[in-house]
Amino acid sequence: MIIDGKKIAEEIKNSLKKGFETSGKKLKLAIVQVGEDSISAKFIEKKVKFAEEIGVKAKVYNLPQDITTNKLRKKMAEICKNSDGVIIQLPLPEHINTQYILNSIPAKKDVDVLSENRSRCLTPVVAAIKEILDRNNIDIKNKNVVILGAGILVGRPAATWFINQGATIFVLRSSTKDISKYTKEADIIIAGVGKPNLITADIVKKGVIIIDAGGDVDPVVAQKASIFTPVPGGVGPLTVAMVFKNLLELNK
Amino acid sequence: MIIDGKKIAEEIKNSLKKGFETSGKKLKLAIVQVGEDSISAKFIEKKVKFAEEIGVKAKVYNLPQDITTNKLRKKMAEICKNSDGVIIQLPLPEHINTQYILNSIPAKKDVDVLSENRSRCLTPVVAAIKEILDRNNIDIKNKNVVILGAGILVGRPAATWFINQGATIFVLRSSTKDISKYTKEADIIIAGVGKPNLITADIVKKGVIIIDAGGDVDPVVAQKASIFTPVPGGVGPLTVAMVFKNLLELNK
Repeated sequence: MIIDGKKIAEEIKNSLKKGFETSGKKLKLAIVQVGEDSISAKFIEKKVKFAEEIGVKAKVYNLPQDITTNKLRKKMAEICKNSDGVIIQLPLPEHINTQYILNSIPAKKDVDVLSENRSRCLTPVVAAIKEILDRNNIDIKNKNVVILGAGILVGRPAATWFINQGATIFVLRSSTKDISKYTKEADIIIAGVGKPNLITADIVKKGVIIIDAGGDVDPVVAQKASIFTPVPGGVGPLTVAMVFKNLLELNK
Repeated sequence: MIIDGKKIAEEIKNSLKKGFETSGKKLKLAIVQVGEDSISAKFIEKKVKFAEEIGVKAKVYNLPQDITTNKLRKKMAEICKNSDGVIIQLPLPEHINTQYILNSIPAKKDVDVLSENRSRCLTPVVAAIKEILDRNNIDIKNKNVVILGAGILVGRPAATWFINQGATIFVLRSSTKDISKYTKEADIIIAGVGKPNLITADIVKKGVIIIDAGGDVDPVVAQKASIFTPVPGGVGPLTVAMVFKNLLELNK
């Protein structure tokens, strides 16, 4: 089964729209972009559009590429003060201390759950994964879960969440020798590397559940999988929806 | 090589003693025990003794087995207010919401790093593991690390830390089928299950590094390992020392 992430995101959007209407107040979401990366700009556009459609006021802050960590942190304090939710579009330029900047967002405004402040929300991509598994009544406990990549957006939060769910987990990275040894045993594969065709049909077992958050999976693998999320149109749109679910949840 | 955890702990103790003397103030460490478990009492005794030897004033709070979560949380607030560091001896009785109680300890007094509040310290057992690996110049990056067990004291913090160090990690649990498939490929094994002889010589490779935090490893495995921590006298004493290292660090 190929998951239609766009359709599920649409359903969530409609229910969120009602939720935001009921809450009465028009919430303000700040989206911070440093520099002018065009891929980042595209992701930001999607979030702004989603916001408009559900009655959230999104404001994009474009900051110069060469801003210092200290200046950005000061700017963040001001932005956080004036917003109900704050997103920092990653990656930040290399000279910036990313985690220090992310930690400037207080937990109750951290819709992306990327600061190290304790949050009651799930990281959006993890919430998207959970949504897909829940809708298909997948019991995670006792499953072999292979996570490819250990970045802060996908791999790390997914690893933590799956460990807490009682799964056996394998976190593989680009340095891992012979990933096929582990992918072949996997009941669930979460891919978040960003390397097209890293996962091919010959290295997974029949019936595997594949959640591709990095564009790492050869599309023909869908024929062998029991559940498969395509790129685009899979985890991506759902993850955007979950950002707004967090915004609503944190402002209840 | 068999690691002499007691000897290393003794070295750390001497350096901590100087550190606490220099700090001037006599620090107060609260140790909270709920109920009267005799194993817990033994662990507490070790910490009290360590405290005395380095000039820290340890106070044990014995609370009744049937205390409610709410009453315990209130009591914790009072204890935290009157102490420079706070330990809750685990496990708590089953009717208690453990994480809720742990979260009552502010980060700057949380020497065990078990609350979900952001901390600048390492969980003591992770600090002990790091100490052993550092002293033997082990490069963790690109290593295969197998972690047995996913509890909050050992498996989970160890998993998070090793992921952040760039290792390939495998978190196995009692439900995992055929652990030998993975232990045989492991460069480093961290055991935190509490099941004697779970790891035998036939399921590890020659030269493996074994850190046994759960008493899970057959002692003869030492002959096949390049680094081996015995139980008792391995990770245990070092972990106690790291609790006090955190206490000093947090009160600097």
